[in-house]
Formats: sequence, C-alpha cells, structure tokens
Amino acid sequence: MNTERPDIRYLFEPRGVAVIGASQSPGKIGYKIMENILEVGYTGKVYPVNPKGGEVLGHPILKSVTEVDGPVDVAVISIPARFVFQAVQECAAKGVKHLSIISSGFSEVGNLEEERKILDYAHAHGMRVLGPNIFGHYSRKVSLNATFGPRDIQPGNVAIITQSGALGIAMIGKTAVQNIGLSAIISVGNKSDIDEADLIEYLIEEDETRIILMYIEGIQKGERLVHILKEATRKKPVIVIKSGRSKRGAIAAASHTGSLAGADEIFDSIMKQCGVLRAESIQEALEWSRFLSNAPMPKGENGLIITNGGGVGVMATDACEKYDIKLYDDAERLKETYEAVTHGFGSTKNPIDITGEASKEDYVAALKAALADEDIHAVLALYCETAMMNAVQLREMIDECYTLYKEAGKPLTFSIFGGEVTEEAIGELSRAQVPVFRDVYDGVSCMGSLFRVYRNQRAALPVPEKADVDLAAIEGIVDGALADNRNFLLAHEGQELLKAAGLPGPRGGVSHSLKAAVELADSIGYPVVMKVVSRDILHKSDAGGVLLDLDNAEEVMDGYQTIMHNCKANVPNAVIDGIEVVEQIQAGTEVIIGGRRDPNFGPVLMFGLGGIYVEVMKDVSFRALPLSENEIKGMTKEIKSYPLLLGVRGEARKDIDGIAEVMSKASAILQGVSRITDMEINPLVVYEQARGVRAVDVRVLLASGEKESAA
Amino acid sequence: MNTERPDIRYLFEPRGVAVIGASQSPGKIGYKIMENILEVGYTGKVYPVNPKGGEVLGHPILKSVTEVDGPVDVAVISIPARFVFQAVQECAAKGVKHLSIISSGFSEVGNLEEERKILDYAHAHGMRVLGPNIFGHYSRKVSLNATFGPRDIQPGNVAIITQSGALGIAMIGKTAVQNIGLSAIISVGNKSDIDEADLIEYLIEEDETRIILMYIEGIQKGERLVHILKEATRKKPVIVIKSGRSKRGAIAAASHTGSLAGADEIFDSIMKQCGVLRAESIQEALEWSRFLSNAPMPKGENGLIITNGGGVGVMATDACEKYDIKLYDDAERLKETYEAVTHGFGSTKNPIDITGEASKEDYVAALKAALADEDIHAVLALYCETAMMNAVQLREMIDECYTLYKEAGKPLTFSIFGGEVTEEAIGELSRAQVPVFRDVYDGVSCMGSLFRVYRNQRAALPVPEKADVDLAAIEGIVDGALADNRNFLLAHEGQELLKAAGLPGPRGGVSHSLKAAVELADSIGYPVVMKVVSRDILHKSDAGGVLLDLDNAEEVMDGYQTIMHNCKANVPNAVIDGIEVVEQIQAGTEVIIGGRRDPNFGPVLMFGLGGIYVEVMKDVSFRALPLSENEIKGMTKEIKSYPLLLGVRGEARKDIDGIAEVMSKASAILQGVSRITDMEINPLVVYEQARGVRAVDVRVLLASGEKESAA
Repeated sequence: MNTERPDIRYLFEPRGVAVIGASQSPGKIGYKIMENILEVGYTGKVYPVNPKGGEVLGHPILKSVTEVDGPVDVAVISIPARFVFQAVQECAAKGVKHLSIISSGFSEVGNLEEERKILDYAHAHGMRVLGPNIFGHYSRKVSLNATFGPRDIQPGNVAIITQSGALGIAMIGKTAVQNIGLSAIISVGNKSDIDEADLIEYLIEEDETRIILMYIEGIQKGERLVHILKEATRKKPVIVIKSGRSKRGAIAAASHTGSLAGADEIFDSIMKQCGVLRAESIQEALEWSRFLSNAPMPKGENGLIITNGGGVGVMATDACEKYDIKLYDDAERLKETYEAVTHGFGSTKNPIDITGEASKEDYVAALKAALADEDIHAVLALYCETAMMNAVQLREMIDECYTLYKEAGKPLTFSIFGGEVTEEAIGELSRAQVPVFRDVYDGVSCMGSLFRVYRNQRAALPVPEKADVDLAAIEGIVDGALADNRNFLLAHEGQELLKAAGLPGPRGGVSHSLKAAVELADSIGYPVVMKVVSRDILHKSDAGGVLLDLDNAEEVMDGYQTIMHNCKANVPNAVIDGIEVVEQIQAGTEVIIGGRRDPNFGPVLMFGLGGIYVEVMKDVSFRALPLSENEIKGMTKEIKSYPLLLGVRGEARKDIDGIAEVMSKASAILQGVSRITDMEINPLVVYEQARGVRAVDVRVLLASGEKESAA
Repeated sequence: MNTERPDIRYLFEPRGVAVIGASQSPGKIGYKIMENILEVGYTGKVYPVNPKGGEVLGHPILKSVTEVDGPVDVAVISIPARFVFQAVQECAAKGVKHLSIISSGFSEVGNLEEERKILDYAHAHGMRVLGPNIFGHYSRKVSLNATFGPRDIQPGNVAIITQSGALGIAMIGKTAVQNIGLSAIISVGNKSDIDEADLIEYLIEEDETRIILMYIEGIQKGERLVHILKEATRKKPVIVIKSGRSKRGAIAAASHTGSLAGADEIFDSIMKQCGVLRAESIQEALEWSRFLSNAPMPKGENGLIITNGGGVGVMATDACEKYDIKLYDDAERLKETYEAVTHGFGSTKNPIDITGEASKEDYVAALKAALADEDIHAVLALYCETAMMNAVQLREMIDECYTLYKEAGKPLTFSIFGGEVTEEAIGELSRAQVPVFRDVYDGVSCMGSLFRVYRNQRAALPVPEKADVDLAAIEGIVDGALADNRNFLLAHEGQELLKAAGLPGPRGGVSHSLKAAVELADSIGYPVVMKVVSRDILHKSDAGGVLLDLDNAEEVMDGYQTIMHNCKANVPNAVIDGIEVVEQIQAGTEVIIGGRRDPNFGPVLMFGLGGIYVEVMKDVSFRALPLSENEIKGMTKEIKSYPLLLGVRGEARKDIDGIAEVMSKASAILQGVSRITDMEINPLVVYEQARGVRAVDVRVLLASGEKESAA
C-alpha cells in the first residue's frame, strides 16, 4: 500500500484528469466541468467517468476510473456524498494522486464521520484530498479549468485560494471584468486535507504566479501556515481577506464553514508578523493584486506627490500617513528640482503643486523631473479635472509618463478626479493595465501595499531566539502534576518551573521554629515577608498572618511570634503548619508575559503592562512562535504603554532587554513542552535598565495529552 | 451709510447679477462666467461690466456697475486683485448686496491687508463677501451657474460647500458622472466673510437641498459653526470631508489655504458631537450623499442581511459592526419568517442565507418577507453572481424589490459581486438611482450613514447644563492677576477660583506659631499636611520641611518643631515665613478636567484619567461648549479607561455624577470668563459613588485681552 503523499504539483500540472460524475446533460455540474475542461483547452488528457456510460462532448464516458489507460493525477469527483467513498476506493486502485471532491454533504452539514473515513482511506493509499464542498480548481500552467464556475478565466499572475465557494465563483467574473488575470484559483472548502499552506508551498515556486490572494474564514493548522507564510512573503506578495472580524461575524463564519475563526486581534497580529497584507474588503484586495502584479519594486522609501490641486494634495498626504508611505522632505533639494515646474506660485514642498494651470506638458515635465530624481523612489500623481487638458491629452500624458516610469522601473500611480473626460481616460487606461484610480485613497493604498512588500522582501527571515531553559526539568514538573490528576501547576511547582527557566522567583521556604525562621531570613537577605502556612486559614491577611518589610533578625523574631499570636487568637482551632519566610521583591514596573496554545495558530505569546493596562485598556501585543529577537522587541514596542518602559516623567528607562530575555524563555517553554496549554508570568517586575527583572508568580495550565517531542 | 448685513438668501436667489470683468474673448474667465450664466438659463437679469465696454454673447457690456438699471443682488468680480477695491466701491454705490470675489492674490499669498480693506469697506456699506480666491457659486433655485467651472451641473438635492477650488470644479464633473444632482455648489476660498455657517443657515431651510456636503481644510469661527451644525444635522444630513488628518497633511493644508487646521482629534470629536458624518475620502462622501438623498428614513434600528453566499454574509456582518448597524437577532422570529425562503439548507440566522441556488423568485420572496416584517427596519441584500440569474433577471429582481421598498418607505441596499452580468446590472441600475454597490463595505457604509442620520434626527437638541458658579468673583480674581501683569493664576488664586466655583480645594492656612498651627489643624480636621513657607527653601521635602499624615494636635506640635529644627539645620540662613497647615486629601481615583479656548472652535472641554492615562495613553475625550448633561456623560463614557470609573477588580463604582458636576462648572467658567484661555483641574480626586470628588489643584492661563460679556 502506497502511503507516501504525492507532490502537490500534480494537482496544478496533472497529466490526466478523470471527471467522476461526468454527465451528458447540459445544466448538470458533471457536464459543466467537462465543458470547462474541454473548451478552455486543457493540455493533458480528460477521462469522463460515470457508471451510466454514454458520451459527453465527443468523449466516451468510462464506467469506472480503473478503466482509464494512462496516468490520472487528478480525479474530480462530483457525485452524491454517499457514493463518494466507493469512487475514492476506485481512485486508489487506479493510483490517482489527488482527489478534488466537489460534492457537498460532509463536515459542513455535520457529517464529519464520512469525511474522516474518506480522508483516512485516501491517506492510506497515497492520495491527497482537495475539498470536499468546493467548486473545483483552475491552473493556468496546463489550461485546466476543472470547476463548475464560469468558463472564461483570464490568464494572468494572480493565484486565488478561497474558502468560500460562492465568493470564489463570483471572483472569477469579477477579476475578468477588472482585467485581473489569474494563474490559479483553488476552492478549498472544508479543507479536510489540502489547505492554504500546502497550496502556497507550491505557488511560491511556481513561475506564473506573482501574487497570492486568499479568502479565509477559519484557520486550522495555523502553526504550519505561519511558517510557510513567513517564507512566502519574502518572495511574493500574499494578500488575505479574512471575514469574521467582528464578534458576530465570527459566529456567522463558524456556522457557515464549520471552522472556528480565531480571535481577530490574534489573526491580525500574526498576519502582520508574517508580512501578509490584510485587506478589509474584496475590492481593496483586488486593487492591490492588480497593482502589485504590474508594479516595479521601489529602490528606496521616498515617496513624492505631484498635484494640480492643493486639496487633493493634502488628502494624499493624509493617506500616505495612513498607508505608511514616507514623503521625501528635504525642502532645499525639492525646491532645486521642482521650482521650474511649479509656475512660480505653486509649491515645491512635497506635495509638489504644479497648480490648476498645469497643462499636459507641465505634467510630463514634472513627472520627468521626478523620474530623473534619484532621491525619489515612487511617485503619486494627482489630477483634478481642469480645462487645461481634454480626454485625449490626459490619456496621452498618463500613458507617456507611465511607460517611461515602467521602463525605468520606478513605481507610479495616478489618482484622477473629475467628470466625463476623466471617466473616459480611466476606462481606457485601466484596460491597458495603467494604474489610474478614481479616489486619492485607492491610489495611495495600492502604493502603500507595494512599500509593505518592499519592506517584507528586504527584511531577513527571522532567526528564532535560542533560550537557555531546562526543558527536561519542566517536563518532569508537568509529569508530576498530571500524575497527580491536576491540569494546573501548584504555586511551588510554578516556582520550580521558573527556576528551571533560570528565572528564580522570590527565594524562601517554610520554617517550623523561630530559630529556623531567622536562619532562613538571614540566608535570603532582608527585607523579607512572612506568611502563615495553614490549610485552615483562608484569608491570611485578615487573620493577621502576613507581615511585610521585616528588615532584620529581631523583626523576624517579633514577626514569628506576632503571627503565631494573631492566628491563634483569630482562628482558634487552626492547625498551623509553619511560617513561610520569603524574599520581599522590590517594587518596580509590572508586566505580564503570557503564552497559550491557540486552537488555530498553536503557541502564541502575549505581552502587556501589568494590571489595568491589560485588563481594562486591552493594551497587548501578540505573536505566533517561534520568535526572533527583533520580533520580540517589536512586541514590546507595539503596545501603547511602551513609553512607560522607556521612562516617562523623569523616570529612568526600564530593563527592556531583561523583559525580552524572559519572553524568549517563555517562548522556549511553550514550544518545548507541548502539554503546557497556558502560561502567564504575572507580574514580572521590571527594574531600571541593566538592573534586571524578577518573575514573582507564574500560572500554568496543562493538557492531559501525551508528551510530544518538541518541533 | 447702510451697514446692515444683507440676507444670505440674495446670494442664492439674486434678482440681478453683475459680472465685473466680463470679457468678449472666449477662453477668458470673464467670458466663461457669462457663458455659464446665460446658457444654463439664469432666471434673473445679467449685467456684464468692463470699463473697456463692448458686447458679450449678445449682451452689451456696461462700463461700471453703477450704470445698471435694476437691482444687483450679486456682483461677481473677476479682475486683477489690484483693481478689486475700486470695483467694490462702485458696488457699494450701486447698492449691491453680495460680492462674489473670484480674483486671487489676497490672503492666500500673504496679502492680508488688501483683503481686510475690502472686507471692512464692504461691511461698512452693507455688503457681504464670498471669497476671494474662488471659482464662484451655483444655485439651482434660480438656475444660476456663476462659476468658471463646467457649464453642465446636474440639478438635484445635494448642496456642496468647498474650500478647495480645484477640487470643487472637479466635483462638478464627478457628481454629474455619478448621477448626483446638486442644489448648490459654493466655493468659499479664503472665507474672508461668508463661511460654512452662513451658508448652512440658509441651506437648512432651503427646500431643494436634502444633503449638505462640505470639503473643509480649516475652520475659523468654529464656535458659531458648531452651534449651527447641531441644529442643521437634526434637519438634514451634513457630510464633511476634512483633509489635514495627519500631522504632515495639516501642515500642507495650512500652507495651502492660509487657514490653520485644528488638531484632528478635536475636529473629529466635535463633528461627532454635532452629528456631522465625516467621510474619509471624497468617494465615500459622494456615495453617502447619493444614497441619503434618495433613501427613506428607517422606522427603527433593526437591520437584516439577505445573501446567497455565506462568505459575503460574514463580511457584511463585519461591516455592520464597523458602521454601527444593529442586526436583528431574535432567532425564533427569524426562523419563523424566513424558513420558507432558505431552501432547507440555508440559514435563517441573520444573515439570512438563501443559498447559491437562489433564483430571481427566491430573492423576491425573501425580500418581500423582510418588507412585510415589521421588526425589520432596513435590509442589506447581497448577491454573488451564480448561474441562477442572467443580467436581465438580476436587474428586474433588484428593480422590482427596490420599487416595493421605496413605496413602503423601508431602506434597502444591494451589494452585488461578480463579472459582466453584474457589471451590466450595476451600470443600468445606478443610472436609475437604485442603490447598488460593487463592494459589501460600500453598501453597508451607506446604510450606516443613514442610521446615524436617523439617530441624529431623533436625538433632542442638547440643552446646555446650568452650573452654579460665582463668575463675578472669578472675573475679580482674573482682574487681579492681569493687573499684576501675570497671564497665569498663582496657587492661592487658583484655590479662590475653585472656591468661587463651589469646588473648595484642600482647606488650610499659614501659621506663625505653634499654637496657631494647632488651632488651624483642629479647625481643618485630621489628618493634615504641614509645609514650611520660605522663599529661601526651594526643595521643601529635601530640607525636611514637609510632613504628612499628622493625626492629632500632639503630632502637629511635634511636627511644627521638627520642621523648624530641620529647616534651620539644613538651610541655616533661611527666613522662615511660617508653616502651612493643610487638609490632607484622601487618596482616590484621579481624573483631569481640562478646558481651553481652541483657536478654531472656541471653548473646548477635555476629560481623562489622571497621569499616565492622559500623558502616555492619550486616552481623552473632547467636546465643544456648551454641553448638555448627556454630552458630558458621553465624554466620560468615551474614554477607554472608563471601566476604572465603573469599578474594576471588585472596586466600587466611582462618583461619576460628581465628575459630571465639575465638568459642568468648568464649562461654565470657560464660557463665562472669556479671558481664561486654559484651565486644568488636575487632579480631581474621585471617591466612591455618592462620596463626592475633591479638586486638589487648578492651573489657569489668561489672555490679556479685554473683558467680554459672556456669550
């Protein structure tokens, strides 16, 4: 039995495709798929299969896939759910590599069992599964349209992966209307097996694909996806539309595809971490796709705005801030270069205002000056309709300048605003793939997406931090707790865990005599805290069983007696097991380092300032593990209360390096010890720079699952 | 000399218009304006004026406006800046009511003096000034296109006020292309006299205008604008596009029109307070305008989504949260009403998913059900292109349903997504003013704007709070400080101000003997704070000159001696003027109540939690004065740290009513005492509910200007 998984390349470049459920009746899905495959001109061989036999579009229908003579790399299965398993068995017999299961009626309606059965069988027989509950897939490489959607898919460089069928089919039409060509479109449906990560792995290397666009409702194997996305975005732009941003939307998404949407803040943070561009709307995603598939990469970070209207110039400046575009602002150099093109009364500050008097020639002159200007790496040209140019001149101007820029490899957008003349120009130019926009924000948003891609591609792939943590000792602590039938660590176990991570908590121990208490305190160093140890006393402070700030041996002696006295007086029958003597941790800035095993993304780290900042202000940052040093630093900088760590109101800077080290240790624990589901170091007390940090307490939750070796 | 200002109505409905600078040469602005006025068919009389004489488009050119026989309500002046003043003098002689000064070369290029001179002269002679530096204005009421922009302006119900000329002209074309009709468009340019507030005052009452759309770069007389906007938005939707959101954009805006843009956060807060809809982009503003000018007002807050695709349904749900649309969610009632239209396997949860199988008839049935459903007040219909409807059916379905809804007065939008079939339908339906959108977010954004208008119009006009403050006493304190040549209040003056507002600060006084100190402390009540009073001791604490927590007469006696001893020992030559004995304010939650006279909006109140929350987290709210009780409560609720006032971690609720009372008093002071430019009560210590608040300190800055009577 062949259980090795076939290369995903066979899904995109199959030598032969069988259509199981092919039909001779136009109107049926099994007919439509055949029609799409044949009419689009698939370069491989097609085999319609249906036990009823017959003929479809000139091709004889085989009774079983096993009858096929020649390799079948993909079997498209479009038959009622209850017949699918048998077809899959036949596919195994034939040695099919990939199953594209169009049929619905599986996990999306609660029929998890049948889906699981098919999947297990497929895996046991060396086959992989796309779907079920999909509209199929298209691959430009072999001109294969194995979908029941529209026949005409414009070939191009954008690969779309969609979890929604209806939206995916509509997107085929939408992209064609918007003149966006596709290299592939894949419907992933229930994602029983093949998911985004599998597909991206292929698409990163595939030559035709320049942009990867995903519509996601829920993530299942997020850890692997994160890993692949981090690499992918360094090579090609990856755009994601994820619905379920809102709480209600998340519920709707869950009911819709049966996959749980992760908390949106976590999703958002992790996509940023991976360098993925998240679009809010489909329209935005499509505009980015179209622009990025044609735009040359800038050679630096300096943007320039050229405009004939001050108002739109200001709006573009606002938009540049929103979309993170740096505007070049060396006033002297700008004046030098652009004074000649601003009509004397325009502005040479960036935005360069060439005034409402600007003619075609003036625009060309200004844009040529910016093209020749090596300090400028991208140009946003704006135009408010005036009487100075007619439709032909406007179009010629844009066309001419865009061609010059394209040849020179400098990115350029036009946002043009006006009536019929403008509309006409936009129509014609868009068809010719020139980036002209109706609204200032749209053009700037596209240019901003390009700069983000530029930054992603320049950033080195993060190298995970190595942290010095005794994982074996921690596994031992976890073993102990689980053996005790607990899914959490007790306080002293938590302290042991901290110690194993090289993060000793407050030193201390339990004393059973006055003498022992003093010896303990002496060995710890002063000040110390003393607390009664008794199962009978729940509210230790109320019973007078806690004393702080004990500064020397005398005070510890007094303290011991005071606590004994108080407790006996207040809780007469209490059995007192001893008195705990603990190092008193000096006050400092409190932060929280949290980690959890996210159901979608696997281990995730959280950082925030202690108390109110996390609880009320929700001022936290998230990242998926593993993390590089830079990513950890990024997490601390991202929170709004970061200035508190830098030192406000004359306070000294806090030990941010110390925090980063603990974050790195926490990451190592979460990654290394898979049975820890939640861990929260709270508070971690942070002192002034170079004075270190102290972990006071840690709360750890466990899963009773099996011990796994670390990834 | 007539110095009474004419009614702004004459600007919009002039009986006669003179064009000073009319030209016989096509291509000149003075020709274009004549052409626009004559060809659009202005219903009043037009008089071209030019000292050169001649004839333009069949009208003889007069040498001076004084030669006109008949009333001239508007003189459009388009001559070089240096000749404008003389023309204005002639207009005064003729008795012109409004001057529309097209000419540039005034304050926008630094020529403030000439602009001021013209304005003063105009006001002294009963004339008002639109501009200078404008492209003119259009008024549908009398078919007057007195601009040099495009001739063809589509008549309709949207009035546009624009500070940018280039953008305004482009918007004429843009609105025509987008099928948005205008009732007026007014270029306000330098706003030397007539500003948005003047125009809105007229437009609120004008029948043809249903929507007011403003493009603003800077605000000058913001106090009056706020007052008028609050009223206007209760009658008609007001939409604003304000550029200069970003810091750099604000600088660009300032250099562009010579008007300072207010801090964007303040602008944003105040627009919300006024019920104005702020659009981010022009496109958004135009879409809102078009939709609002046709949509019926909902009769309640419940929205319903009907879709044939789960994916877009989830996106619409997300968008509803963003745009604040409440989705009806009585699952039982929804199931009852919509079960019949969901094909059995769709969803009756809101979004109602009628599945990809939905035909024209299914859509009509679902939409009819929602129309009949009295619990549903607005419907968002979504459609992903399927093979179930062709272009004609899609168009018919939308047309039919929209007509039914329109007749019944229930708002409905369609967001339809797909290829050519969809594109075709959108084109035709848009031309027929049916609200169809290409993107889910656009449709929801429009419906959201409608709900905001609905809420504005239902909200009562806020009635300013009356606060019990002794303004005369405060004026006296201010007089004293100014007489002392100070632009700030000293600490004890600040305390007097608090007292006059009925907000006594910490009680206390200066004692010159041990006996007096004890008497003072006794009269204040314990605990008290003691501080040395000496000009020679700058760092009182360091010198041992401050003691806290003195609980009784004995401690005060000891304290007196201790302070004397310490200070003499530490600063041997210091002259000690006495010892201050002050009530020790009990700790509580600290908040800050700030007020300032904003250069754009006049008195503005700020609220935030003390310390870090304001300084680092920038967690504050703003409103323009005057404020109603509800608006004040809204300010406290708006900050992110509001839960701290409600009580977190088991703490009790704080005295929010007490805070509101102080805010109301601070408002009264700022409004009543015009020479106070800045005032900050910091901290105001807040105790548990009904336990009150205590103002500890107030910092007050003054302007040396004249005493004005309160507005």
